Amino acid sequence: MTDQLLDALTRGVTTYDLARQFRVGMPQSPNHPQFWHVLPRRHGDMVRSDGGSAANDMITTGTHVGTHIDALAHVSQDGKLYGGSDAGDACLGGKYVEHGVHTIEPMIRRGVLVDVAAHRGVTTLDGGYEITLEDFRATLEAQGTEIRRGDVVLIRSGWGARFEEGQAFVGGATGVPGIGEEVGEWLAAQGIHAAGADSIAFECLRPGAGHGLLPVHRIFLVEHGIYIIEAMNLEEISAARVHEFTLVLVPLNIFGATGSPVRPLAVVSGE
Amino acid sequence: MTDQLLDALTRGVTTYDLARQFRVGMPQSPNHPQFWHVLPRRHGDMVRSDGGSAANDMITTGTHVGTHIDALAHVSQDGKLYGGSDAGDACLGGKYVEHGVHTIEPMIRRGVLVDVAAHRGVTTLDGGYEITLEDFRATLEAQGTEIRRGDVVLIRSGWGARFEEGQAFVGGATGVPGIGEEVGEWLAAQGIHAAGADSIAFECLRPGAGHGLLPVHRIFLVEHGIYIIEAMNLEEISAARVHEFTLVLVPLNIFGATGSPVRPLAVVSGE
Amino acid sequence: MTDQLLDALTRGVTTYDLARQFRVGMPQSPNHPQFWHVLPRRHGDMVRSDGGSAANDMITTGTHVGTHIDALAHVSQDGKLYGGSDAGDACLGGKYVEHGVHTIEPMIRRGVLVDVAAHRGVTTLDGGYEITLEDFRATLEAQGTEIRRGDVVLIRSGWGARFEEGQAFVGGATGVPGIGEEVGEWLAAQGIHAAGADSIAFECLRPGAGHGLLPVHRIFLVEHGIYIIEAMNLEEISAARVHEFTLVLVPLNIFGATGSPVRPLAVVSGE
Amino acid sequence: MTDQLLDALTRGVTTYDLARQFRVGMPQSPNHPQFWHVLPRRHGDMVRSDGGSAANDMITTGTHVGTHIDALAHVSQDGKLYGGSDAGDACLGGKYVEHGVHTIEPMIRRGVLVDVAAHRGVTTLDGGYEITLEDFRATLEAQGTEIRRGDVVLIRSGWGARFEEGQAFVGGATGVPGIGEEVGEWLAAQGIHAAGADSIAFECLRPGAGHGLLPVHRIFLVEHGIYIIEAMNLEEISAARVHEFTLVLVPLNIFGATGSPVRPLAVVSGE
Repeated sequence: MTDQLLDALTRGVTTYDLARQFRVGMPQSPNHPQFWHVLPRRHGDMVRSDGGSAANDMITTGTHVGTHIDALAHVSQDGKLYGGSDAGDACLGGKYVEHGVHTIEPMIRRGVLVDVAAHRGVTTLDGGYEITLEDFRATLEAQGTEIRRGDVVLIRSGWGARFEEGQAFVGGATGVPGIGEEVGEWLAAQGIHAAGADSIAFECLRPGAGHGLLPVHRIFLVEHGIYIIEAMNLEEISAARVHEFTLVLVPLNIFGATGSPVRPLAVVSGE
Repeated sequence: MTDQLLDALTRGVTTYDLARQFRVGMPQSPNHPQFWHVLPRRHGDMVRSDGGSAANDMITTGTHVGTHIDALAHVSQDGKLYGGSDAGDACLGGKYVEHGVHTIEPMIRRGVLVDVAAHRGVTTLDGGYEITLEDFRATLEAQGTEIRRGDVVLIRSGWGARFEEGQAFVGGATGVPGIGEEVGEWLAAQGIHAAGADSIAFECLRPGAGHGLLPVHRIFLVEHGIYIIEAMNLEEISAARVHEFTLVLVPLNIFGATGSPVRPLAVVSGE
Repeated sequence: MTDQLLDALTRGVTTYDLARQFRVGMPQSPNHPQFWHVLPRRHGDMVRSDGGSAANDMITTGTHVGTHIDALAHVSQDGKLYGGSDAGDACLGGKYVEHGVHTIEPMIRRGVLVDVAAHRGVTTLDGGYEITLEDFRATLEAQGTEIRRGDVVLIRSGWGARFEEGQAFVGGATGVPGIGEEVGEWLAAQGIHAAGADSIAFECLRPGAGHGLLPVHRIFLVEHGIYIIEAMNLEEISAARVHEFTLVLVPLNIFGATGSPVRPLAVVSGE
Repeated sequence: MTDQLLDALTRGVTTYDLARQFRVGMPQSPNHPQFWHVLPRRHGDMVRSDGGSAANDMITTGTHVGTHIDALAHVSQDGKLYGGSDAGDACLGGKYVEHGVHTIEPMIRRGVLVDVAAHRGVTTLDGGYEITLEDFRATLEAQGTEIRRGDVVLIRSGWGARFEEGQAFVGGATGVPGIGEEVGEWLAAQGIHAAGADSIAFECLRPGAGHGLLPVHRIFLVEHGIYIIEAMNLEEISAARVHEFTLVLVPLNIFGATGSPVRPLAVVSGE
């Protein structure tokens, strides 16, 4: 008796890596502890009697740097988390026991790419541009993609390609393109499970406004329990015109944390 | 036209989480930086004008703690890494540019569980017990499981249940059960892609011997390029008697690191 | 016109280092983040065009590890800090703005050593032994030392020599010798400024009791505003029979922290 | 018999704090791990049966951030450290066993302030301005200060006041004022023990040149074994016109590190 999933695998799949590489010095929000990776021990530092040697690592990092997922505990509104939990009580002994990242189930789900930049024929939308519902629906229609309950929806503005440029990606002065309340409310109404984008804060940031007001974070994380994935690499699936796929996303099971670095994959049958 | 993989998904799958939860204070090897998670900002620390507030995290950790994967750069023998690379030259600017964890492709592969403890009818094999090839083959036969080229092979000694007991899991005085050179060489000959176990160092540790000599690490990482996954949680798939599955394992793409925390999944069709 | 202090210096002084060396793996309380020091860059990793190269460090550590000082914000009793401050309100934006270590003035003060172990003629007092007021006063009398208002009082039990033995220094099973409430109340009544000891928690720990109850911490930090210095190295001044000296102790000015690593010195005129 | 030093103390001293406060977000070189301080446990997170509670800290930081001292192991030239040590061999097991910060003796020494900015009648010298030997000697003469063998010499350009302005202090685009090779060689010839300044890299940085070439570091650290102290706060002693004092500087005794945060003091007799 064959497992249908294994069987599909055996016939060949193509995997797209939707994450940025974690590198010391990569662009990130100054609100979060910087990513650092160092080698406490290198080969040769301590060689065993049999000629063997082990090298190892030390990582220090925020969880909202690089490609990462926001747990529902990340944002509160008027002292409440999703479902009306008291944000103070949700933190016990220095851990978000409620809505922490340990409560996010690993995702193996239908994923869709809404490639607004490609539809608009631009490399990237402009800094600070808010993607309208009209933009969004026109893109879906042109792609022939439908959004279903439970989907993970990835929105490409094209800004992600600036990741390699460093501070430009953070977009303090220029702003960053993305969706705003209009598309956020509409997506929430579709009952999606999670949403991601190729920018640092998922949603539209106005030039010079910083991360002070993030209405889509409130709508998704606090009002509807929809997870947010940030700083994704959507260039490759865009180039391949892959708009529907199996999305694999497995957050680290860190007890009580508000987010986790992730390396999401888009998988499609065929090689 | 439906994607075959998505189609299999749509018909329902069951997912087993093969990772331990990352918790401050969990048992780990003293050779690696301790896992710590702290909240720099909690809700209420800084409330924005609109009543919103964000909490965040700081993580400090080794990469060889909790459930994790060893990159080939982790171990050298006589100054060489896998494929004969010079272990000194492989490290450039403080990063293992060769054989670092960033070179491990995300795995969506056939996985098999070799449940030696279940076959032997014990909760756990004894500390320091080396699983023989006879044990191993008898287990495979009893299970009706075959090992194929490219598989990820998970070996359950039962010792993993001690993870919740803290230092007992580390097994300094008692030793830890696991495979030795005999089974290691045999597995390498089968052409497997990676192997995992429910113990701290994957292989058999003799009582009081510590991590000083790890011959299977040499055989797998240095001689055959086979990845090693440690401190897995194999209790649930053991109880469910799931011996063949789709193994999903996605290391973080940390440039130049020797390992990564992971949260591997076993996925089977049917709910 | 000569500065009197500089003048005294010029005539020669002897300096005793009262701190333990910070080393990866040194004994420390498991309640606090472990001390780690790693080199992100070593010489040769990145050589500049002119042949120059810089090596650097990354430190991760708790502040209550190694030789360190406790700020008043470290301990609360019934929700109050020293002076009746509300322990919740004292923490603003994730920093102890009240009674944090940044509020401790650098100390250049009269210091006295109360060498109980030497007076008793033992290498170390026994684990769990509580130094009585009688012990304490007998030691002072034998030494001919008096305690004055504003002094920094260092109490030697001899246990500090176990620092090099690792876990034995922590003393979980054996307990650790030190003063208890009796001597604590008496010292507080003398109006001392700070007190230190050569053990991990300054005061007497009963065998197996851990750090659960620390009454002298309450008396000193919460009730009297007296700073506590832990894990000091008092071996050298003991051997030199230096019982009165200029104590130099300069905490790092870390805004909002509850403690700081320190390297206190005892300085005496003459070489 | 009174200790002359204690006696001088008793008659009263004034202490000037020459360090900047360690704060999350303070300006620092991007070459070094960022300073972070977080509270793993706050009061109330875990209250003991007797109503007591302890808060604690986690620090992650480079050692060349905030006010700090450079050990001789920090810089090499053509593969050599001070005294001709091989820079590779000086690092054993991931620690600079030679010339690490643990080899710096605590300093209680004659200190002098060379207040070039005050002499020139400016708030701060311009970014990129190199203090000439003529400037330097004119300042010494106007102050009536002489430099002696073994002194710690602090040079004030006035740039330090920009510490509170954040990135302006780092001075990437503007450059930073300071001494260059001319004054560096002259100071080395006087046989000074250490030198400090109120800027991020001690010496003159040309606009846009970054930290790529640091000739005074080579002269002091590699050729003459003179320690360097950076990012000092010299505003207060400048305002008080204190040009000669007892300099107290106690690096943390971190085995094998290339630097240490410090909080140097200038102490003078009289209140």
